[in-house]
Amino acid sequence: MKMKDIADISRAKARIAEVLGSALVESMAVRTEHSRNEAHFGPALPDAVAFVRTAEEVSKVLAICHDEGCPVTAWAAGTALEGQHLPVFGGITLNMMEMNRVKTVHTEDMDAVVEPGVTREQLNEDLRATGLFFSVDPGANASLGGMAATRASGTTALRYGTMRDNIRALEVVLANGQVIRTGSRARKSSSGYDLTGAFVGSEGTLGIITELTVKLHGVPEAVSAAVVCFSHVDAAVQTVIATIQMGIPVARMELLDTNYAEALNHSFQMDLPRKPHLFLEFHGSETGVQEVAETLRQVAEEHGGSAFSWKTTMEDRNALWRARHGAYEAMCAKHPGRRSVVTDVCVPVSRLSEMIEAARADIAASEIPGAVIGHVGDGNFHAQLMVKDGDQADLQIAKGLARRMSERALSAGGTITGEHGIGLGKKDLMEAEHGPAWAVMGDMKQLFDPKGILNPGKLVR
Amino acid sequence: MKMKDIADISRAKARIAEVLGSALVESMAVRTEHSRNEAHFGPALPDAVAFVRTAEEVSKVLAICHDEGCPVTAWAAGTALEGQHLPVFGGITLNMMEMNRVKTVHTEDMDAVVEPGVTREQLNEDLRATGLFFSVDPGANASLGGMAATRASGTTALRYGTMRDNIRALEVVLANGQVIRTGSRARKSSSGYDLTGAFVGSEGTLGIITELTVKLHGVPEAVSAAVVCFSHVDAAVQTVIATIQMGIPVARMELLDTNYAEALNHSFQMDLPRKPHLFLEFHGSETGVQEVAETLRQVAEEHGGSAFSWKTTMEDRNALWRARHGAYEAMCAKHPGRRSVVTDVCVPVSRLSEMIEAARADIAASEIPGAVIGHVGDGNFHAQLMVKDGDQADLQIAKGLARRMSERALSAGGTITGEHGIGLGKKDLMEAEHGPAWAVMGDMKQLFDPKGILNPGKLVR
Repeated sequence: MKMKDIADISRAKARIAEVLGSALVESMAVRTEHSRNEAHFGPALPDAVAFVRTAEEVSKVLAICHDEGCPVTAWAAGTALEGQHLPVFGGITLNMMEMNRVKTVHTEDMDAVVEPGVTREQLNEDLRATGLFFSVDPGANASLGGMAATRASGTTALRYGTMRDNIRALEVVLANGQVIRTGSRARKSSSGYDLTGAFVGSEGTLGIITELTVKLHGVPEAVSAAVVCFSHVDAAVQTVIATIQMGIPVARMELLDTNYAEALNHSFQMDLPRKPHLFLEFHGSETGVQEVAETLRQVAEEHGGSAFSWKTTMEDRNALWRARHGAYEAMCAKHPGRRSVVTDVCVPVSRLSEMIEAARADIAASEIPGAVIGHVGDGNFHAQLMVKDGDQADLQIAKGLARRMSERALSAGGTITGEHGIGLGKKDLMEAEHGPAWAVMGDMKQLFDPKGILNPGKLVR
Repeated sequence: MKMKDIADISRAKARIAEVLGSALVESMAVRTEHSRNEAHFGPALPDAVAFVRTAEEVSKVLAICHDEGCPVTAWAAGTALEGQHLPVFGGITLNMMEMNRVKTVHTEDMDAVVEPGVTREQLNEDLRATGLFFSVDPGANASLGGMAATRASGTTALRYGTMRDNIRALEVVLANGQVIRTGSRARKSSSGYDLTGAFVGSEGTLGIITELTVKLHGVPEAVSAAVVCFSHVDAAVQTVIATIQMGIPVARMELLDTNYAEALNHSFQMDLPRKPHLFLEFHGSETGVQEVAETLRQVAEEHGGSAFSWKTTMEDRNALWRARHGAYEAMCAKHPGRRSVVTDVCVPVSRLSEMIEAARADIAASEIPGAVIGHVGDGNFHAQLMVKDGDQADLQIAKGLARRMSERALSAGGTITGEHGIGLGKKDLMEAEHGPAWAVMGDMKQLFDPKGILNPGKLVR
């Protein structure tokens, strides 16, 4: 990758400093902080970091960068898993975390208007007294702007949908600094092209999100959780398929393979059998939740499920989901001296157990320890591949495993990413997934960002 | 509106005839059939009608039209309400109704791959043995291609979503004849720009949909319905808001004002009190449905609801929804010699009763009989304004009423169309709703259709 002309970036920095003053930071410490990622991508240093506070400031910065041809990459919580926030061409990194106000909560309409640096935990903290909650939960305490840009989802998407389903409207600053609003606070609309949908999942390559109107949901009257284990992944998946077909409203339905069960036993002092497990959660009325859980127990047993265990108290439930959310760290703890490469395919559920078994066999045949976990109700699963820290050969093996999982997902009518996005990691598979539609995405990029300043190097060719 | 150069269209017709043979029809009878609409727009005659059978044929026709600068407008069931299917610049009308195969039903994955001329009733007939159904129900037996192009919804959107939420993937022919596929059969994806979303709701102005992969839902174990009346619209709306906030899974929640109650009594021999009503439907398990209905009865009574009446038998339920779906004709029957102008705003539910009351007051102050009906759980309502047939003054009054409803919806943070789309009827309000984002839509149109051949005159400037 070649760097843009240094002179452009210097001029852009000087002009932005006039607008932002001390909020444009060029210290190596701050730049280094904004060069890192949670995945295996090498560091990428921005030339300066702009701590923006308003859409107007974002607009001014973009207008200057557009003028000077200077790259601009948005950065918020920094939890992206495919290097989406890495400024691989340098330029200006927009730190969005000071735009962190919950502007308005409309309880009757069940929506909230927030700035992009608000994190999901912060929003739910704010909502505590309202009886409402924001549902999308990718695990990490990500920013809502980042989650929108990545089209994130997580464990509750089965019941409440992904970011695509939970955003009503956006304010977006376009590459040239123009500010537009997409959507409205209405729950549905047939009014023209779905521009909201165009920006959700665009990873900062079409515009910078400066405000989101997100949907909220009512806190369920009752919540219950359960754990059940199976002798084989396929039996777990068949249970999932039967459950969905029956229209049973399960809120969470997470598959953990034997290796994860062992890792959780190791880190969380659990005593899970050495078998694949489903972790389940039900939301509804008191009687509804009981009915659903009982139906599900029967369905699981019909498919050979055993050791069905209720988690009715809040304490037990919290312990269960703490373990689930800690699965990543539990694998790391079980494999000291190694770091993770995480995959993220999503396939039609009818092909899921075949895909998971193929992934597990492929991992077992490699030199690399790994485990599989999945939001199986959605057909989405991750493999966590543990490569020796700093070992390039190991990393290449893991990348090969990941690539084959993606290729198998495509051959099954699925997608190379269910929720982590494209960024740097999946770009070379985009043509395989989308064919000529990838070129159409490139045309859209060219339309929205003719100078290629917005998060260059990501998603499109 | 000026017609395109006649020579271009003649050349296009001649070249298309070489490809399609007798499937390109130029008879005045067939052209006239394809010039009409269900709303108040004047007829618009295509130069010829192409009865296409495959994506390949659509591709060839579009390539020729692109070459010759000849307008192309898709036509399927002909049920659009804003003149979307009227070829106002002449050219070729693509009749999609011979592309009517249900190609594949994946029961485990709960999706179906269909051609665009399949109607929703046809698909549900096909699904009868599977225990699955297609949920979107706009009332008319519309084609799925047309419903996608309009981003349609209807009475069940509250529970199951709109067309936006029920399409996994599309095959689309672009203006130049190139065929692309968007999305996949995975239930979710973060893989690049949401092109599926870009075409859904684009009213045939960005490409022609030649295949859809739609979501299916499990037929609920139990269904129950109820009717309840209120002394005032606001009490009905407050019942709706409370119900949604409690997370009660109501499948349908329809408001009919006093005038509709009278019209239904007149046409369907019902004995509804002369008051606003909610028609409700619950889907779930046997006990779940009973619990929900009972909870809802209590909520309604807390808000002054009365005459709560169960419709537990399938016969009673069918009669109820036959009446609801017949409300439009019932108004027509009550006002012989008049025809309907139908409005379609959608607002945040907190503003809904204020919007409905303002609409009713505005109608009452006019010379025109009218009534209000709404998918109130979504904040979407329609006024049916009965204008004297052929009376231009009446039509102008109705258009003024409709325009003021749209303007009030915008001032309340809503949208000018919840489900009928833009077409010819709402184009002059697009800038008021979207501001500079409407120009962005125009740029997208220019990108996808640089020669402006796809459904010219609609949606964008």
